Parts: sequence; C-alpha cells; structure tokens
Amino acid sequence: MNDVTPLIAALKTEIGADAVLTDAADLAPFTEDWRGRYKGPAAAVVQPSNTAQVAAIVRLCAARGVPVLPQGGNTSLCAGAIPRNEGVAPVIVNLARMRRIRHIDAANGSMEVEAGCVLKTVQDAAAAENRLYAVSLGAEGSCQIGGNLSTNAGGTGVVRYGNTRDNVLGLEVVLADGTVWNGLRALRKDNTGLDLKHLFIGTEGTLGIITAATLKLHPLPTQHALAWFAPSDPAAALQILGLFQAACGSRLSAFEMINRRQLELVIQHVPGRRNPLGELHEWHVLVELADTSGGDEMAALLQQTLEHAAEQGLIHDAILASNETQRATLWEIRHSVSEANKKAGVGLTTDCAVPVSAVPAFIERATQAVHAIVPALDILVVAHLGDGNAHFIPFFTFDAWRELADPAAMAAAMRRCVNDVAHELHGTFSAEHGVGQTGLPEMAHYKSPAELALMRTVKTALDPRNLLNPGRLIP
Amino acid sequence: MNDVTPLIAALKTEIGADAVLTDAADLAPFTEDWRGRYKGPAAAVVQPSNTAQVAAIVRLCAARGVPVLPQGGNTSLCAGAIPRNEGVAPVIVNLARMRRIRHIDAANGSMEVEAGCVLKTVQDAAAAENRLYAVSLGAEGSCQIGGNLSTNAGGTGVVRYGNTRDNVLGLEVVLADGTVWNGLRALRKDNTGLDLKHLFIGTEGTLGIITAATLKLHPLPTQHALAWFAPSDPAAALQILGLFQAACGSRLSAFEMINRRQLELVIQHVPGRRNPLGELHEWHVLVELADTSGGDEMAALLQQTLEHAAEQGLIHDAILASNETQRATLWEIRHSVSEANKKAGVGLTTDCAVPVSAVPAFIERATQAVHAIVPALDILVVAHLGDGNAHFIPFFTFDAWRELADPAAMAAAMRRCVNDVAHELHGTFSAEHGVGQTGLPEMAHYKSPAELALMRTVKTALDPRNLLNPGRLIP
Repeated sequence: MNDVTPLIAALKTEIGADAVLTDAADLAPFTEDWRGRYKGPAAAVVQPSNTAQVAAIVRLCAARGVPVLPQGGNTSLCAGAIPRNEGVAPVIVNLARMRRIRHIDAANGSMEVEAGCVLKTVQDAAAAENRLYAVSLGAEGSCQIGGNLSTNAGGTGVVRYGNTRDNVLGLEVVLADGTVWNGLRALRKDNTGLDLKHLFIGTEGTLGIITAATLKLHPLPTQHALAWFAPSDPAAALQILGLFQAACGSRLSAFEMINRRQLELVIQHVPGRRNPLGELHEWHVLVELADTSGGDEMAALLQQTLEHAAEQGLIHDAILASNETQRATLWEIRHSVSEANKKAGVGLTTDCAVPVSAVPAFIERATQAVHAIVPALDILVVAHLGDGNAHFIPFFTFDAWRELADPAAMAAAMRRCVNDVAHELHGTFSAEHGVGQTGLPEMAHYKSPAELALMRTVKTALDPRNLLNPGRLIP
Repeated sequence: MNDVTPLIAALKTEIGADAVLTDAADLAPFTEDWRGRYKGPAAAVVQPSNTAQVAAIVRLCAARGVPVLPQGGNTSLCAGAIPRNEGVAPVIVNLARMRRIRHIDAANGSMEVEAGCVLKTVQDAAAAENRLYAVSLGAEGSCQIGGNLSTNAGGTGVVRYGNTRDNVLGLEVVLADGTVWNGLRALRKDNTGLDLKHLFIGTEGTLGIITAATLKLHPLPTQHALAWFAPSDPAAALQILGLFQAACGSRLSAFEMINRRQLELVIQHVPGRRNPLGELHEWHVLVELADTSGGDEMAALLQQTLEHAAEQGLIHDAILASNETQRATLWEIRHSVSEANKKAGVGLTTDCAVPVSAVPAFIERATQAVHAIVPALDILVVAHLGDGNAHFIPFFTFDAWRELADPAAMAAAMRRCVNDVAHELHGTFSAEHGVGQTGLPEMAHYKSPAELALMRTVKTALDPRNLLNPGRLIP
C-alpha cells in the first residue's frame, strides 16, 4: 500500500484544505451507494472548483501512482460511482462544486455547463430560454451532467431525442497526464478527424475526467398530450407503438410500459399514487406526445390512434389526461418506481435492450428463465418500449432475501439468466445504466474478444499507467 | 519502392482475377476525382464481394507493407477517395460490389446494409417499408453508404435528423490486422463500454475499413410543405429560422440558403431551372416542413410563419409550393448547384460551420477577406443555415482561373482566409465534407496540439504500422 499522507498534504496545499476530505464520517456519503448495497474505500474525497484544479489533482495523483475516481451525483444503479474493494484505494474527485452554467446561446440551441450541474438545473435554465434540454430521467433532481455523460444516460426521452450522447456538442476533459483537452465546440457539424468526445462519453471516467460540456438544445414543446392505457399484452403494446409512430411521427416523446406488480408496488408504497384506470390490468403504458403548436389537433390525434388500437382489440382500457395536473399525476406514477421498489424489498434491477421488435419475446423468455430458478418469483417490468429497453426486475421481499443462503450468488444468477435471454435476442445487458461494478462480469462474459481487445487498446493508449478508474469498464 | 507483382498475384488468387484491376485504363476511373482536379497512383484496384475478402486483402497488403485505401462512390469534394502523390502507391479497395441490403426490421426501425450500397438505393428500400433513412445529399444517386460513414456525411436533412453518425446503430469493420469487428447491433441503447463505432465514423478509413452498417430508420413523413422566399439578409434569415423552430418544432426538415450569384449560375447553366420569384433578390431560402399527418395544418403553419416574418419586415417575397411538382422543381434548383458550378467555372468550395447564431457575421467577414485578395471576386454561398454550415465559394471564371500565375497558391490562400474567419468565430473548416487532401494542411494549422496528439495516439494504437490510408486525416 502507498502511504497517501504526502499526497493528501499536497492536495490540501494545491486545492485547499476545505476541499479535501479524509475523515471516515466525511467520506461516508461518497463511498457508499444510495441504496446502501455497495461501499468501498477511498484515500480521500477532493472537491475541485474549476478545471485547473481537476488537472492538478490528476497530476498529483499520477505522480504518486494513486488512482482517480471521478464522481457526480452518486445516483448510479450499478455502483458506478463507488470505489471497488480491491487495488489501491482511489482519490475520489467529486465534481459537485463545478456547477456553473457558463453560457447559453438560444439562437444556436446550445449551452455550456460544468460537469457538476444537476440535470434539473440544466433543464430549467434551458426552459427559461424557451429551449429544451431533452435528457430526462428519474434521478434528474440529483444526478449531474458529468455522470450523465460518463454513463451516456438514457431515460424517458430517448424515443424522440436519443441518449445523452446525442444531446452533446462538445466536451472539456482532463486527460490521464493532466492535459486539458478543450473540445467545447458549439457546432452541429464538424468533420475534422476522429470525433474525440465519443472516447469519453459512456466510458465512466476510465479515459479522462469530463469537466464541462456544450449541450444541444431543442425547440421547447409547449403542447402536450398524454394517455395511460392498458394494452392486452406486450405484443399489442408494440403494435400500438407502431401506430403512434406512423400517425404521430416526431411528436411521440415517451412510450413507457410497466407491468401489474410494478404498479401495485407504487400504489402500496408511495403516498398519493393511485391506479388511473378502473381496475388493475396486466400491462400499462404511458404515452406522451409533444409539439410546439397544434395542441388540439395533437389531442385528437392521440385519441384517434387509441381508438384505432381499440378497434383492433389491442387495448383493455385507456384514460387521457385532460389537464396539466392529470398529466403530472400520471408521470408521478412512472417516476415513483425506484422509490417504491427500494421501500418494498430487493429488486435485482437489470437493464437490457433488444431490438424493439424483440421486446415481447424477451419478457416472455426472461420470465421463464427466472422462474426456472425461483418458481413464481415476483417480476417487475419497467420498459422504455420505444427504445427496446426493458428493466426486467426479479423481486424479493426483504424476508425472502434475508432467508437466502447466498444472496450475492442469487443476484448474479438472476442477472445472468436475464442477460442471457437479451444476448440470444442480439441485445445488450446494459442499455442505459452503464457497466459500473455489477456489469463488469457481464462485459467479460458477453463481449467478443475483438471488441474487448479494441477497448483495451484504446485504454492502454490513453491511460498507459492505468490510473483513471482502474479495474472498471473493461475486464 | 516495393515490387507489387507478388502482391497482385496473391490478390488475384485470393479474390479472383476479375476483381483485381491493374491496367492504367482500368484504374483511371478510380484514381481521378469526379471534378478532374486530383489524380494519384495506385498499385491496383481490388473489388471484393464480401467482408472476408476485404479482410484477406488487408492481410495480404499488411504482410507486404503496402497501404490500403478504401473507396466508395468517389464523390468526395475534398479528394478524399483519391490516392495522394507521395508515399507507397496504395491498393484501392473499392466496395462497389458489396451492395446487398442484408435485412430490414421495420418494427425496430433498422436496416443492415453493405458498405457499397448507393445512398439512393437505401433510401428507396426504407421508403418501401414506410420508413425514412434520413441522410440526403446532392450525390445520393452515386455516393455509397461506406463513404457516407467514413466521412460522416451531412446534407440537407441534418437540421432535423443529424449527420450520418446520428443515423447509424452499428458497424462491421475490418481492422488493420485483418480482424473483423462485428458491431452490427440494431439497438437504440447500448452502454457497454467505449462506443467503438465512433472510432470509424468520420475517420476516412484510417482506423479500419467499414464493410457494413446497421442504419437507423425514422417514421416516413407523408406530408410536406415547402416555401421559397427571399429574406432581406442573412440576419433576417436567421431570425426567420428562429420563428420556424419555435412554431414548427420537429417539422422543420430543411432550411437552405443560397445567394443571388449562385442562383444566377444555376439558371444560366442547368437546363430547365428558373427563378421561382418575380425578380432576383440577394438571398433565397428554401424551407421545408414534413410530418406524418396534419398536412393542411402544416401548410397553414408555414404560411402563418412566413406572414409573421413579413410583418416584421424580414422578407421581400415568397412562394409556397402548392403541389408535388412545384416542390420537386424548387428542390431541383437547390440540387443543381454542383452541376452549375462545375459547368460555369472554378469554385473553391469551402465547408465551414460556425454556431448558427454566427452565420451572418461569418458571411460578412469572409466576403471582406476574399475581396482583400481579389477585389470584387464573385462569391457563391450555399448554406445549410439550420446547421450553421455555409459553403462559401470564391468563384473564378475559367478564363480568370487560367490567367492565374499560381492557381494552387490562390486556392490555398482563399481557403485559408475563409477558414480563418470560421476559426475566429469558434467554427470549423470542415463541417460535412471531411478532411480529404484539401483539408490536411488545415488540420495542422487549426487543431490544438492536445487534439492532434489524442488523434495520433488512437491512430498509432489501432494501426501501428500505418497501413490504413496513411498520410491522411492526421497531419
């Protein structure tokens, strides 16, 4: 083990004593994940206030061979922001103090922000200029742009606007040797060689530390139309998705599906949540359209499309939100999923994506696979159906979980059997959460040798001493 | 120099004698660019029929230290598909025989195609399934998907659908050692490490040879509304763009601006093209809206937005296309630009992008810069205004060009002074054409040392012997 005392002293001198935490009690919020499942040691937590300080931290750590782990809002669903329990304990570089919105250019549809900006703050700042920053997800009140970028976060707006990767124009990154790469371009087109930002988006801090970004903004939709309906089954939901795409085109902004057990947990565990329909059905879809004009025509289009689906026998029941309050209420159900599941028991969250056309087969086969291990186990399904991304969650009560002889082995077995089904259907084990700690064994298991070799080649080239978040992403 | 005789023999044995061209007359169409400005030597042109043959070619060339230059439809505007006149003459791998559409999944919105597929063929195959492949550009009747991908081609649909990069889900690539990387995923979300496809998109064959791709398809718009109008100046056009974005949102599918001299050349040199308005104005914009439904409302929206602009004094005159024939006629003017300019003289095409908000300043300052070199020289402007991408073209008559003492120096000086203005405005010298041969000095001049170093690091890691399109992209 390194003696980190001189490093800590140097960090305090360079960044300021108040920005370097080392006491166990101070470290706790940064070294344990929000669900309390993962915890790992850190040499220190450093909270830089600007890019030059991040570069200084990287140089100081590199000089002493101490690894660096960048951290945002610590909202990872796969323990991506928490140190692992092997190797040299890293210095955590927490970006929360770098939260300036540097610049908004409404005419260009762009804004430059620092990595520690909370997603919600960014959305609000864009909306104040009549623009949309289109990434939206459950943790938006606390997750940070730097974390979104380093995990290429998805969410509920992907069906229309793509992932975080698709909503960024430029980056500022501190490299492994402390060099700052300024790629903060605000251009819609730039074909001058390798598009370097894609090296850092989604690579979880293993190739560099993202310190700022130029984000892409869209025209702000002012009209919304939302419905909640019960399709007869996932195949029917898929057919209805096709009807909406054909009729509503780019207006389609969300197409979210949850199953009965998931809705029951939300109703039971989150105060104020109710079933929007007369009875509980097996499947439920929230569909939203959004536009900059033509609200009445859009509401009519929504109703017509649902009627068209009902005529074909694809729907049991449906309700249209008739005002903003109803719309918010229906979204609250969807956004209460994580809270409900955390209160209700132990959900083994998976994050598979398959081709959209294969989602019904995925749900059916994954259910069989899980029940082959634990018959009749509860399963929660929360699917971004428009993206082919289904969170398929084998779910244990706290009591059932406590009774397991080897919970870690159970968790691994469940994840593997679900991921196997996705793999057979040409899908992925991580659609939007990233690799983190839970996904690392899956990388080794599913990725082709050619793919792993390519990733290792790039990693070795950019971080030859393996100091940026070592042991992560690439097994 | 290498003796390539044994290599040619080996290639004929492996790929077939009919697929290996070596006679000067046979090589000519592949070694000279379509405008006749660039020509370079090749050891041979090989035309593989499948991915395994591409891998075999790369291995055979690598074993003998002969470079490989992949080539698509040879429609580059910066001599990207043509061998350079230094170094070892390469083997050109022409992908034209690999033109199968392997698979279309309409429900998933994806199609798998080989690199040699002509863009128009891909568009038509998607449309036959009621889907849109959204990349559209002047050369679409002859350019190939592999070329589009390796240059991240732009075009007229970028304002709504993004560049080629944004319209691809997966790739198949032959690497420098002949390994085939199969990354042909058809997923909307996949966060499993470095997104490798971005290494190969836009890198012009320097890191691998793209042999196939899974493309992203959109719902097919069936309704269109198009207008041609004369804004008072580029700043007014920019304000009108903002009006359209706010009112029409995602319907906005094209916003193309040309100046008076450019329109005059089209009218003079391309049979059947006429000025759509009563008189010639200084600036002209083609704006198109597209939707899957609501054609009448959209036409009304187009008209209202233009009236709104007229009330603010931003427009001299406008005409709305009232049927498909008129719509096609107006698009033909825009698409006749390259043909007109090739017939009319020597246009020094530039391809700058700046933040959208900076386009008026760019045009004004670039005009001053060009006229400081050649007073009153004709300037053509063809701008994808919605993307901030202006083709600003200093234009010489054939006579004037012939009279120049040093045409190459004039071309370089003109490009540099225009690119300087873009650079000052935080823009780029290559928005959509790529680097090719004309852009290589600009890479050396404008890119930061950190950026060039990062690109070189990746190039060296992936192609350590520098056999894939050497001397290109990175100076």
